[in-house]
Amino acid sequence: MAAPLVTLTTDFGDGSAYVAAMKGALLRIHPGVHVLDLCHTIPPQDLRQAAWFLRDSIPWFPLGTLHVVVVDPGVGTERALLYVEVGGQRLLAPDNGCWTSLGTPDRVLRLTDSRYWHPRVSSTFHGRDILAPVAGHLARGVAPETMGVLTAEWTRLPLSQPRREGQRILGEVAVVDQFGNLISDVQLEGGWSVVHLGPHRIGRRVRTYGDAHPGELVALVGSSGYVEVAVVQGNAALRLEARVGTPFIVELLQEEP
Amino acid sequence: MAAPLVTLTTDFGDGSAYVAAMKGALLRIHPGVHVLDLCHTIPPQDLRQAAWFLRDSIPWFPLGTLHVVVVDPGVGTERALLYVEVGGQRLLAPDNGCWTSLGTPDRVLRLTDSRYWHPRVSSTFHGRDILAPVAGHLARGVAPETMGVLTAEWTRLPLSQPRREGQRILGEVAVVDQFGNLISDVQLEGGWSVVHLGPHRIGRRVRTYGDAHPGELVALVGSSGYVEVAVVQGNAALRLEARVGTPFIVELLQEEP
Amino acid sequence: MAAPLVTLTTDFGDGSAYVAAMKGALLRIHPGVHVLDLCHTIPPQDLRQAAWFLRDSIPWFPLGTLHVVVVDPGVGTERALLYVEVGGQRLLAPDNGCWTSLGTPDRVLRLTDSRYWHPRVSSTFHGRDILAPVAGHLARGVAPETMGVLTAEWTRLPLSQPRREGQRILGEVAVVDQFGNLISDVQLEGGWSVVHLGPHRIGRRVRTYGDAHPGELVALVGSSGYVEVAVVQGNAALRLEARVGTPFIVELLQEEP
Repeated sequence: MAAPLVTLTTDFGDGSAYVAAMKGALLRIHPGVHVLDLCHTIPPQDLRQAAWFLRDSIPWFPLGTLHVVVVDPGVGTERALLYVEVGGQRLLAPDNGCWTSLGTPDRVLRLTDSRYWHPRVSSTFHGRDILAPVAGHLARGVAPETMGVLTAEWTRLPLSQPRREGQRILGEVAVVDQFGNLISDVQLEGGWSVVHLGPHRIGRRVRTYGDAHPGELVALVGSSGYVEVAVVQGNAALRLEARVGTPFIVELLQEEP
Repeated sequence: MAAPLVTLTTDFGDGSAYVAAMKGALLRIHPGVHVLDLCHTIPPQDLRQAAWFLRDSIPWFPLGTLHVVVVDPGVGTERALLYVEVGGQRLLAPDNGCWTSLGTPDRVLRLTDSRYWHPRVSSTFHGRDILAPVAGHLARGVAPETMGVLTAEWTRLPLSQPRREGQRILGEVAVVDQFGNLISDVQLEGGWSVVHLGPHRIGRRVRTYGDAHPGELVALVGSSGYVEVAVVQGNAALRLEARVGTPFIVELLQEEP
Repeated sequence: MAAPLVTLTTDFGDGSAYVAAMKGALLRIHPGVHVLDLCHTIPPQDLRQAAWFLRDSIPWFPLGTLHVVVVDPGVGTERALLYVEVGGQRLLAPDNGCWTSLGTPDRVLRLTDSRYWHPRVSSTFHGRDILAPVAGHLARGVAPETMGVLTAEWTRLPLSQPRREGQRILGEVAVVDQFGNLISDVQLEGGWSVVHLGPHRIGRRVRTYGDAHPGELVALVGSSGYVEVAVVQGNAALRLEARVGTPFIVELLQEEP
């Protein structure tokens, strides 16, 4: 039988002792867990970037994978810690809405039973003292309902919502990747042509980067289904001086009369 | 049975081919090891930062976990390579004192038997050519005493020692984390009030970040038991222009007469 | 039996959702795989740096390890995706020559059977939609020849070739590591003395860093067998203002007459 999978996503920074301590606290409960780092470079306390990250990565994992997500601006307040089942995946996270980008949950529990926590819970690091040990117990097969109580209340994170205005969809840049590709929040397959990004008009729509020459500025539907702007083998973010939040307008094709 | 755990901590930088080669050399001896990256961004040859990192992370791991730590300004000199048992953990490291922050060891061996090393040991990369294969053999169950000889001599790393002066403890900033929190070397639970950090006076002491408003400058006991200064949902290092080594003075409460 | 090993090397950047999605897509096919991150900070689309990285790391792994390498400037063009056996290692990569630094392959297949791919292949992310699932099937034991066809055609990547001119070998800086060490493309054991690096003459040749004082500028044969220039416990790249591509000239010793 394969080792149980537990992924980690945080805003602690690469090489943080906080991440290392969480791995230790998790493995102390179940040393057979296969721990996978997903991302530790979510910008500090940026729940919106965490939500985009989870939406583009979590659905690819095997059903039942357990994901521990610690971006926690509210640590030390009364915010709850949650166990969530959504889209066949399982998450442990503070109640901050970062996972609501994944859809409607099947089940949400509020973690309440401190017998599954570290005996001494610090007031500033619940990822290590509560979520990591709970992940270990879940990986050992402890039933979630043993560790908490069902709840119907949780925080929803309002992600940006593109809106239609005539023949245009007004969105914004949601993600800038390592290549400088500008990925919008506008989910469209066909029926569109031009993108306006700040003062720039991108009129060259392609199916894939290979349809254009290196250095060319293009618009396309990216690998997660969102309209993006790229420079083939170059960096669109630098070229257009765009960033997360820059207005991103998609012109729809005129419908046939 | 769970796969044996081996963690890696180095100053080689994220994505370094040196780290990759060490993983290969380790797995070549025992392909069943579960390899965990802890940190590869210790500042180059900064033993003091390595010591703080180990102190905040290693004690959380399951007893018996094997930790390979390569921060090695002395590579190519006559410095020894050690196997150490301390606080229930096992470490492999050059003899540079980075692990002495973990307490008094139960056993220290000097690695001497080259049969457990790579057949051709380079003069500049003992992490790959000695420590990684020795880790593999330890993970396979080879007894440490087969691979080296007991020693009572090893390097101690003098970490900063806060000192008391009247009602003040004079320490310094030991760690700056990803959030800009300034973590001192002053370990205290109660009995203190104000922190002075360079020219700044931080008079707001809280139990946790949630006790203050976003943007507020606070002092608290952090998750490792050391006094720290933070800006709630902000960055104290940037706000106060502080860094590792900045004087950090904690005022003790007047004792009852 | 040990879990099958699959390593990942990309230019997606640390913490990229693309890497996370690849891990998910791989584990979805075979949740028992032990996934190892090697490097995600290859400079974007820099095949030459990928080739140096692979040459310095891949040969250290256990024979038969599977390495997925995605640096893919040609995604969306007609370039093939390959399965390669070379030097006892197995690789999956776009046909871009990054692996040709590893030597002459024993077998190269062009991946053709889409039954082993994600049901819906995007036009811009073949790492997630083709290579990751194929890696999962290989890890499950599916024979490579089931998934593709033998080919005798693949891209060779021309790495820099040092050339001899009288008593000098004219090379260049191939890699700059985390310590600022300048590693050349000149592979030599003995028979050389001085290095010229741009306007600088490095006349101090040592066997290892420990043979010189901190701060001293030295030349030596590095841990991969290439001549390098270093500052002991310092940073040669900063000191000499050198980078990848800077001319690196090695003076050979005069042969005995």
